[in-house]
Amino acid sequence: MKDHLIIIKVGGKIVEEEDSLRSLLKDFSRIAGGKILVHGGGKTATALADELGIKTKMVDGRRITDAATLKIATMVYAGLVNKNIVAGLQAMGNNAIGLTGADLDIIRAVKRPVGAIDYGFVGDINWVNASALAELLSNGAIPVIAPITHDGKGSLLNTNADTISSELATSLSSKYEVRLIFCFEKHGVLMNEADENSVIPEINPKLFEELKTKGIISDGMIPKLDNGFNALRRGVSAVVITNAQGISGGLRGTRLVL
Amino acid sequence: MKDHLIIIKVGGKIVEEEDSLRSLLKDFSRIAGGKILVHGGGKTATALADELGIKTKMVDGRRITDAATLKIATMVYAGLVNKNIVAGLQAMGNNAIGLTGADLDIIRAVKRPVGAIDYGFVGDINWVNASALAELLSNGAIPVIAPITHDGKGSLLNTNADTISSELATSLSSKYEVRLIFCFEKHGVLMNEADENSVIPEINPKLFEELKTKGIISDGMIPKLDNGFNALRRGVSAVVITNAQGISGGLRGTRLVL
Repeated sequence: MKDHLIIIKVGGKIVEEEDSLRSLLKDFSRIAGGKILVHGGGKTATALADELGIKTKMVDGRRITDAATLKIATMVYAGLVNKNIVAGLQAMGNNAIGLTGADLDIIRAVKRPVGAIDYGFVGDINWVNASALAELLSNGAIPVIAPITHDGKGSLLNTNADTISSELATSLSSKYEVRLIFCFEKHGVLMNEADENSVIPEINPKLFEELKTKGIISDGMIPKLDNGFNALRRGVSAVVITNAQGISGGLRGTRLVL
Repeated sequence: MKDHLIIIKVGGKIVEEEDSLRSLLKDFSRIAGGKILVHGGGKTATALADELGIKTKMVDGRRITDAATLKIATMVYAGLVNKNIVAGLQAMGNNAIGLTGADLDIIRAVKRPVGAIDYGFVGDINWVNASALAELLSNGAIPVIAPITHDGKGSLLNTNADTISSELATSLSSKYEVRLIFCFEKHGVLMNEADENSVIPEINPKLFEELKTKGIISDGMIPKLDNGFNALRRGVSAVVITNAQGISGGLRGTRLVL
């Protein structure tokens, strides 16, 4: 039987505010067994870019990453946000190690080809070094992963954290029984955005199509669910969308099923 | 017999300019066997602080680290500089991993007590986790270490890179035969600052005292040599002060001896 591994992706807001970060880390530190945290940091990056007079361009919820923006993303994601999470987890007795895709070559990506939109220094993931991650996990380390990858030719690349999580989950499912948790501000996917108690407990691909057609699932939630269903199809054993409180208490929220 | 390990500390300027960085990484990547790179990044940190209107305060060559400055140091050292070095080394086939003292709890420090000067969030090193570093080295990883430590209570701390190098060297000398190289812009310690060919090939503690009295060794070079002699007294097998070119070619420069 494979060991369990839980991969938790936390959205920007949760890790960028001190109170919610501390609460998240407390919940995360209580999870027993192998675990990986993947984080964002977009709000801080946007704020720093503003302070430096660098204009943030977004298309479909994705940051256009010119050279100056890549520097900011590297500083904020791999430096400020990542190392504060690591220090916080260490203080709770969790042996965290902060990583980008470049470290130990764990996530190799390719710069997205220029099509209708030039996303700049954005990376599409080529492969995940599951062995290097498994080696760290077997030594009791807890990888904390910033949304920065590399191309193997010396360039860092900005990469969507949801995508990183689902690629990690898929790749590691050859070695572990992986549960993938997308953690954001809401209790789960809501039937009615104004009602926090309208969490949809389970979504299958058919319901997903219906909810998209009705506009109940839209914007950034669509690629998140696409990522989640892909992960399920490629061997991940469970995918859940929930809030920070949901990660410690038996995974409340919305469960994706095939 | 113990395995060899080489610890190289590179000063800010060398890693902060693209050409000298690439050249350094090429030389570093050619070194066979276990190796660790410790880097600074002060110039970039000062430039970012200036852009953000944060005043950099220095006392005796040490940065006074208020909360805003700690954020900048974390972004620049642990993010921008560290991850660009890692990506560069990976491109040369070196399996680099970027670390701060918080990652895997490798360097625990204590916030410097407030005396005549309040240095702010500056860490004095308590202990080095030599086992965690040895584990990485035995897996063929090449640690690249940013001058940021932590206090084990959730706070990151800014810590002098020369001090980190000599503490790492000392601690790892129980497991390895360690050579410690301080790498900066000059060919070595110069008898006459205007003459790059006046490198002093060897300095013992007696000569060190004489050169200090004559003002030939002054400022930031004094703590560097103090660190070096301390490392020698505590088991490090060789300490050399040289420039980037000196690291690949048989360690030219100034050698410290007891």
